[in-house]
Amino acid sequence: MKNIKLTLAYNGASYHGWQIQPNGITVQSVIEKSLERLFKRKIKVIGQGRTDTGVHAIGQVASFKVPAIALKNMKIPQIKDALNSVLPQDIAVMDVESVSLGFHPRFDAKERAYRYVVYNDHNKQVFGRNFFYSYQYKLNLSKMREGARYLVGEHDFSSFQCKKTDNENPVRTIKNITIARRDFAVSNFLKLKNKAVVFEITANAFLYNMVRIIVGTLLDVGKGRIEPQNVKKILAGKDRTLAEETVPACGLCLIAVRYPVNVKIPPLKGDSGGCKKY
Amino acid sequence: MKNIKLTLAYNGASYHGWQIQPNGITVQSVIEKSLERLFKRKIKVIGQGRTDTGVHAIGQVASFKVPAIALKNMKIPQIKDALNSVLPQDIAVMDVESVSLGFHPRFDAKERAYRYVVYNDHNKQVFGRNFFYSYQYKLNLSKMREGARYLVGEHDFSSFQCKKTDNENPVRTIKNITIARRDFAVSNFLKLKNKAVVFEITANAFLYNMVRIIVGTLLDVGKGRIEPQNVKKILAGKDRTLAEETVPACGLCLIAVRYPVNVKIPPLKGDSGGCKKY
Repeated sequence: MKNIKLTLAYNGASYHGWQIQPNGITVQSVIEKSLERLFKRKIKVIGQGRTDTGVHAIGQVASFKVPAIALKNMKIPQIKDALNSVLPQDIAVMDVESVSLGFHPRFDAKERAYRYVVYNDHNKQVFGRNFFYSYQYKLNLSKMREGARYLVGEHDFSSFQCKKTDNENPVRTIKNITIARRDFAVSNFLKLKNKAVVFEITANAFLYNMVRIIVGTLLDVGKGRIEPQNVKKILAGKDRTLAEETVPACGLCLIAVRYPVNVKIPPLKGDSGGCKKY
Repeated sequence: MKNIKLTLAYNGASYHGWQIQPNGITVQSVIEKSLERLFKRKIKVIGQGRTDTGVHAIGQVASFKVPAIALKNMKIPQIKDALNSVLPQDIAVMDVESVSLGFHPRFDAKERAYRYVVYNDHNKQVFGRNFFYSYQYKLNLSKMREGARYLVGEHDFSSFQCKKTDNENPVRTIKNITIARRDFAVSNFLKLKNKAVVFEITANAFLYNMVRIIVGTLLDVGKGRIEPQNVKKILAGKDRTLAEETVPACGLCLIAVRYPVNVKIPPLKGDSGGCKKY
């Protein structure tokens, strides 16, 4: 028996999220079907965690077990091209590795990194509307970073959790939040100088909708509707109604999942404005 | 009567090109319907030229005439926001100007600039598939620029014209061709260093499919399938069957239309590799 770790990229626009559902096509179900086509048997895929409807990934991690005999003469690295050729165009295998039989994508993961992209301009944007959230108000990034500092560290994030979630332990540890102004890069047809605001949030794990509620709240700080210190109060209140709106899924992308040894998270370059623990 | 010049951006993925057709939704027809909704009367829109099904624009130019009375209290600059609010999300008015009654977008245009984007890597790309052409072979840009030089200047471009076109004069003047390697920028989620090859071609006007046949031919030069000097022979042959394949529409964008005085073409920055006349 082989345990195979996949690193996946997908455009979430056409999928009802990662996890298999009774209704709607999901990324997990498409990958399982593709593996079945490849290895001529039912194969169960385990993901490191869910992504919601419309959320994208460039570093999702999943694994599956397959008997050595089913691989026939296929070498492990060849699985990448073979699987890519049966997957649809909006799901790609970026990397394939043989891992120990005990490896579990979710339980072994130590850190997840998400990126959220805001198009910050008043001009209508016609390209790649599935890859950003359009927010036209002027943003004060210093204040947003000041607000973000209150969130770094180990906290009860009940205020930043969708109410629909299971009644799980709401304590998580945010390692880092960066907020950077960048050129908006939605195609090589045009380059919009400094028109993007990019968030990157790294934590041991996230609650349901946590990134999107944090971004929504920090945007309100940046706009001046609430003060940076309010973020501390919102966190302390442990009540979802205190935080601001959940921003849309299309701006969100799972960048990387880090394991104790081998998976590197690509750093956010340039004016990163990192936020250390307050 | 007012003559209004519009500068338009659109994502061509959902449209049967610019020009009104009996079947299929076109950009021109959507704009005419939006203007009718805004001004409560039928309005005819004149474009500077067609773009094909799936071709994008950030600098398409069109004009329409409207009686001053129909504007009511609306000032000319206000037309931008008013029209954007009735247009669908994939068509945007970038600029509105009042011009002389004699202005004609097609007859007065002196120069058109198109950009073509190639994603040049073997890895599958899941984002923004409507905004580039995926070409995995290694490209020699020096050879491509050498081939491109034969095309600059006034020539009979019959070899670079789709056969289906009307029997018009096939002589055009290419002012400039640049071919540059750039970072592939299909979203702010990821930045792929040097994975894009971007063509920019400026001419007084273009024949049907001319940009796409030129790019297809230069890619074959870059791949090493034909020699740069062959481009000269292909041009001299005045026969479409001599040139290479027409690359897909999705990689193409109309960047700008230049008029004698007022419209500027944004320059292609960085390693532009400009090709002067041979």
